[in-house]
Amino acid sequence: MNAPLTLRRLVLAALLAAASSSAWAADPVHDAAAATLPEYLDLLRLPNVTRASAADIQRNAAWVKAAFMRHGFTAQLLDDGDTPMVFAQLGDRHARKTVLFYAHMDGQPVTPSEWDQASPFTPVLKAKDASGAWQALPLDKLQGGAIDPEWRVFARSAADDKAPIMMLMAAADAFKAAGKAPAINIKVLIDSHEEGGKPTLPDVVQRNEKLLKADAVVMLDGPMHASNRPTLVFGHRGVTGFKLTVYGARGDMHSGHYGNYIPNPAFGLARLLTAFKDADGRVLIPGFYDGVHFDAQTLAAFAAVPDDEAALLRRAGVARHDRVGDNYQQSLNYPSLNVTAMAAADIEHPRTVIPFEASASFDIRTVPATPGARELALVRQFVEAQGYHLSDGAPTDAERAKYPLLASIAGGEGAAPLQTPLDAPIGVWATKALEGAYGEAPVRIPMMGGTVPTHGLVVGLKSPILLMPLVNADDNQHAANENLRLGNYFMGVKSLHALMAQPL
Amino acid sequence: MNAPLTLRRLVLAALLAAASSSAWAADPVHDAAAATLPEYLDLLRLPNVTRASAADIQRNAAWVKAAFMRHGFTAQLLDDGDTPMVFAQLGDRHARKTVLFYAHMDGQPVTPSEWDQASPFTPVLKAKDASGAWQALPLDKLQGGAIDPEWRVFARSAADDKAPIMMLMAAADAFKAAGKAPAINIKVLIDSHEEGGKPTLPDVVQRNEKLLKADAVVMLDGPMHASNRPTLVFGHRGVTGFKLTVYGARGDMHSGHYGNYIPNPAFGLARLLTAFKDADGRVLIPGFYDGVHFDAQTLAAFAAVPDDEAALLRRAGVARHDRVGDNYQQSLNYPSLNVTAMAAADIEHPRTVIPFEASASFDIRTVPATPGARELALVRQFVEAQGYHLSDGAPTDAERAKYPLLASIAGGEGAAPLQTPLDAPIGVWATKALEGAYGEAPVRIPMMGGTVPTHGLVVGLKSPILLMPLVNADDNQHAANENLRLGNYFMGVKSLHALMAQPL
Repeated sequence: MNAPLTLRRLVLAALLAAASSSAWAADPVHDAAAATLPEYLDLLRLPNVTRASAADIQRNAAWVKAAFMRHGFTAQLLDDGDTPMVFAQLGDRHARKTVLFYAHMDGQPVTPSEWDQASPFTPVLKAKDASGAWQALPLDKLQGGAIDPEWRVFARSAADDKAPIMMLMAAADAFKAAGKAPAINIKVLIDSHEEGGKPTLPDVVQRNEKLLKADAVVMLDGPMHASNRPTLVFGHRGVTGFKLTVYGARGDMHSGHYGNYIPNPAFGLARLLTAFKDADGRVLIPGFYDGVHFDAQTLAAFAAVPDDEAALLRRAGVARHDRVGDNYQQSLNYPSLNVTAMAAADIEHPRTVIPFEASASFDIRTVPATPGARELALVRQFVEAQGYHLSDGAPTDAERAKYPLLASIAGGEGAAPLQTPLDAPIGVWATKALEGAYGEAPVRIPMMGGTVPTHGLVVGLKSPILLMPLVNADDNQHAANENLRLGNYFMGVKSLHALMAQPL
Repeated sequence: MNAPLTLRRLVLAALLAAASSSAWAADPVHDAAAATLPEYLDLLRLPNVTRASAADIQRNAAWVKAAFMRHGFTAQLLDDGDTPMVFAQLGDRHARKTVLFYAHMDGQPVTPSEWDQASPFTPVLKAKDASGAWQALPLDKLQGGAIDPEWRVFARSAADDKAPIMMLMAAADAFKAAGKAPAINIKVLIDSHEEGGKPTLPDVVQRNEKLLKADAVVMLDGPMHASNRPTLVFGHRGVTGFKLTVYGARGDMHSGHYGNYIPNPAFGLARLLTAFKDADGRVLIPGFYDGVHFDAQTLAAFAAVPDDEAALLRRAGVARHDRVGDNYQQSLNYPSLNVTAMAAADIEHPRTVIPFEASASFDIRTVPATPGARELALVRQFVEAQGYHLSDGAPTDAERAKYPLLASIAGGEGAAPLQTPLDAPIGVWATKALEGAYGEAPVRIPMMGGTVPTHGLVVGLKSPILLMPLVNADDNQHAANENLRLGNYFMGVKSLHALMAQPL
């Protein structure tokens, strides 16, 4: 599907590649980007696993604060217990609008033995050889000389999310080198708690509301669209988790002496799951999709995203996809009901028993029209409509004697969705900036399927929010051999420079 | 349900209790039983966990062999690697039929900390106090004086299965004390491998076919009917295990980015389970019950078993039972399809993913009309009829690209069922013997739901087999605080004596 788009993308990729190795070399924005690469490597050398070491995060915060100051920003640490965040600022003219850029300096835990290099915190520059294998290059290849955009830097947080921090400084440098000033006031918040531990962002935002106040927020996190074209994301789904347990006998029962007689809760749970969804993955719970409607502009936006769905299915290794929406993007704009895990007894050591209970954990990905609390209430009602009595935890003896079908539902915690209208001023501004820089419209994703902890920013600042991911989609983020494609580093600086040059 | 039967049982219990404390005291069979109690305690003092110590089993075997010889049997060890079995014999007259009695001397593993006594291998005599709590009594209460049938001996294998070994010797003693000989030739096989490790019975039987040859086999194992009335069991179900795995994507997929798009195999597995059975637990797989028919005699036998189904449900803690048969006994005479465990991802640590696979392990309890291989073939056909392609283990890339629904089925090992006709000579003989001893028909169970490893005996000896369980149903076998009710010890000796006195 989308054959014309694929062709167009190939042509674009060829143009970009040509541009990067010749025209970009004479581009002051490119030069500014290249000049920051040694600092970028230094930043990657600082271990940054919040859960592992607060002292590591303190070292990152001190380094980042000093770096912003070296690059012309004012900067300060924001108190957050023993893992401070960093605030930086450039320009404060009343006549200009203010944009707050968000990124984070902490990273996911590492298992060094899984990496194809000595340490996740010793960055390695690599290029693909003729056979497609990654081969290390000397790091000094990054100091002067032509840089192949296909080279990659491998290290924890190379992409997620230290690259955007340095890209911000490089973009500011480009204005300075050209003797110009950005068209917006720039604020920067660098989070220390995005990847682990209790999220502290809402508290930090609340305590620093005035300092962080902005007309718009741009979050620099996550990977770009798989086409690697400049990408704007206008929202994300929320998430609500819960656990459904179906109860059988008081304890495991001998499957010989009681098989065909004592009901097996695994079959009961299976019946509920089967009632929840049809064979195409559409939720059958009444009201679950209520309020979800798409106008013509939104439907067109779904269709305009250059997804290669055939390639997606091939990568995943499945011959067909669920049929909730007409295409991948539309599917992500409906709430989902997903089983994240399921269990009865111990499948690694099955004994010949009728298990006493069977459980499934779920996540509901929500959209603004379908709040998690409403969806969970609909699930509860539906389970009751199937004849189940919902107990508060494990059933009492009286409940066991009275109700043939017993279950419980626990949980309901989650995070809220975010949706910025496609025609909101922040979207018009960013789209215009990127169109100006690249000569064509960016990929505009109405809503990404995953969840980003924007709630603290939304509630605390009440500013419109947009996500602008800058790193390659195949960056292995959260896993071993995380990497940044250097072409994306240059493109990211170019995109940020374009936004900074565009009056809001 | 069964109110009249319950009343009749209460009356019978009262009569038995009265008999045990007065009439039995003057009964030579009762006296012979009482005289063996000190030896019974000695036998319980020998640790007997096959998997834990072969030397322990050797000590048990030597003790059991010597004990049979003390009680007038000839006896020998049967080679079985380092865990010998014991063979004993009493009488060898050509004019008499020969019955082989089977019991086992090995026991289930113990967790001493879970026991309410110093050691599972230091037997403790206990009586219930007014509050219903068990209180220890001096062991010498068992040496002379009246013995309350409600007292119990607590120790590993007190019930399962050392008591029947001593009961056999006591029953033989009663003949000797009366100057009589049994009406049958008696052979005894004491297994060393029933509770754990690789079953070696088939090999031992094959190597000793001539020695063990008998006209009938009576297995003394398992608990009596819950009514505690003398019980004969005419068969048991077989068992066949398998594992069904439904495949989703190649690996776990992010539930945000792919929820509503990449199919979740947990829902696929649930749909299959729901198709397997209706809400009343009846299997919907075509042909699964084919060949199962009950004649009027068998239906009457089901109804005659004095089950208290209301009490069974109360103990289990469920308000309703599956509706495969018209009653509990009939349900156990149909093959069952039971989920023994089920899993997708890790429910203890659920992550927000679409799990890459979902599995359920099953056991099919089989009856002679429904062999395990046939049932498993029907399951495979049924899964395919639901649109699934069954791969041989995990699917290949080509299978992933071709088939929307992918699953695999592995396993199929199991044990055969056994069914001796209710009117077979062995059943008539044992029924007549027990009727004579107790003045009413025993509980006759056409087929128990669980599986007993009789196959080695059946194939090796080609003799009709009957099970005569002798111990109380609430004996905590296989668990902590295993115990034998002393009334059952006396009743067991009486039942064995009755069989031995009855010509086959």
